[in-house]
Amino acid sequence: MENLGYYNGKFGPLEEMTVPMNDRAGYFGDGIYDASTAYNHVIYQLDEHLDRFYNNAALVRIKAPMSKSELKAELVRMVEKVDSREQFVYWQLSRGAAIRDHKFPEGVDGNIWIMLKPHKMESIYRKIRLITLEDTRFFHCNIKTLNLLPAVMASQKAAEAGVHETVLHRGDRVTECAHSNVSILKDGIFKTAPADNLILPGVARAHLIKACKENNIPVDESPYTLKDLFAADEVIVSSSSTFGLAATHIDGKAVGGKAPELLKIIQDAVMREFWEYTKL
Amino acid sequence: MENLGYYNGKFGPLEEMTVPMNDRAGYFGDGIYDASTAYNHVIYQLDEHLDRFYNNAALVRIKAPMSKSELKAELVRMVEKVDSREQFVYWQLSRGAAIRDHKFPEGVDGNIWIMLKPHKMESIYRKIRLITLEDTRFFHCNIKTLNLLPAVMASQKAAEAGVHETVLHRGDRVTECAHSNVSILKDGIFKTAPADNLILPGVARAHLIKACKENNIPVDESPYTLKDLFAADEVIVSSSSTFGLAATHIDGKAVGGKAPELLKIIQDAVMREFWEYTKL
Repeated sequence: MENLGYYNGKFGPLEEMTVPMNDRAGYFGDGIYDASTAYNHVIYQLDEHLDRFYNNAALVRIKAPMSKSELKAELVRMVEKVDSREQFVYWQLSRGAAIRDHKFPEGVDGNIWIMLKPHKMESIYRKIRLITLEDTRFFHCNIKTLNLLPAVMASQKAAEAGVHETVLHRGDRVTECAHSNVSILKDGIFKTAPADNLILPGVARAHLIKACKENNIPVDESPYTLKDLFAADEVIVSSSSTFGLAATHIDGKAVGGKAPELLKIIQDAVMREFWEYTKL
Repeated sequence: MENLGYYNGKFGPLEEMTVPMNDRAGYFGDGIYDASTAYNHVIYQLDEHLDRFYNNAALVRIKAPMSKSELKAELVRMVEKVDSREQFVYWQLSRGAAIRDHKFPEGVDGNIWIMLKPHKMESIYRKIRLITLEDTRFFHCNIKTLNLLPAVMASQKAAEAGVHETVLHRGDRVTECAHSNVSILKDGIFKTAPADNLILPGVARAHLIKACKENNIPVDESPYTLKDLFAADEVIVSSSSTFGLAATHIDGKAVGGKAPELLKIIQDAVMREFWEYTKL
């Protein structure tokens, strides 16, 4: 199969899959999700993604209809059904299907959605361009919810500007990108916004931090500003499908490129971990 | 029919209706909506709701697959198919169905969803209780989007507290409720938060303002505080299904009840307008 859709145990070609109109995902974005990539049909860091997923479910008080190990088994089973060696693996949990009413429906289980599509990993060593945009999202950005309209708008803005991502900032403070984290290298230190309610604690971000610590690169998890971003030695954008790409331009201005050796140490380390994890 | 569901021209019993898994409403809450009530199969202030709906679609750059007059005809047609004399009439527009990707899909039309269910109008003269909660929503509250998870959480909090609604505030400033506007009467003046990006410009709110103006009650559309709320002569919560209810308690403290005659003038006026509009 090329693209696979799954809903509460039923699965098939994604384009043919339907869900109940009353699923609360469609009325309220009332759900949470997570995503990773699979290589050789191995889902990268699945346990970390599942831990975050179940943690997020608890934060918005949605009860999953299956345990973490059951969902893991379903994901592993579905990934085997898709031909592509590289896949984007996405799953979400909505607060059940019920006649539309804001408050939680009673006696209704959450619904599990899974979506798989082919993915083509691009080199971590390629360079990207970025733009900036005021961060007007809600104050629950630590939760991976289905309330993603501002991320959609910011991603479209990046696409129309012909760049990879949009860096969001609340006033001077850099938060993250539309669907990635953003960190910087400055004077030998890896600086990344703290994992508070303004950013998603990315799995790729965690592995960048791990790579730094293993390579004796100091890590500073405190807020940094737009000025810091433009003056950084390197600007690194990370997500579960890109790991950690360096930017050369933001809003058309040249940035980074001043610590290529340090950057390569980190990028080599996260890729080494990926290849080790997904090797057959 | 009791509950009706409609998707791009296809309709049937709501509980049996399905939508494509790839509709972007389900992945991103990528859409906008509007809602009103119908009485005697007449949708109250439909033109105003449709104007707002198409305005909101433009704000998030979603192209509707049909014109305003065509959608109006579809809504009127659907309302006739539901038996109940009183209905909740809901419709939404999503940014089409496509393989999940944040940026806008190309060459894909928006999708129209309609949902109708019986509604039981309760007396505008009944009293309600409220609670308060910090407003942690995004900065696009002027747009009626499907990104409603904070509204869901706030509504559930109200339900669990056994009250009608949750009043949201950003710091000291009162914004609105989870799915209603909130206004106050103080010293003969109707005060309501300005229609900026922090509140939804409610149709019921507009008709309260209209009723005030027709009855020579001054209207002040400027920000007011939690302190103003608790010290108000009357606290009025309005939505398209409740019109304008007065509160007696907020967070368990007695409020309002100090301008009952003025309150009644406004409530009588909005109900007179409703009965006039929906009479056979």
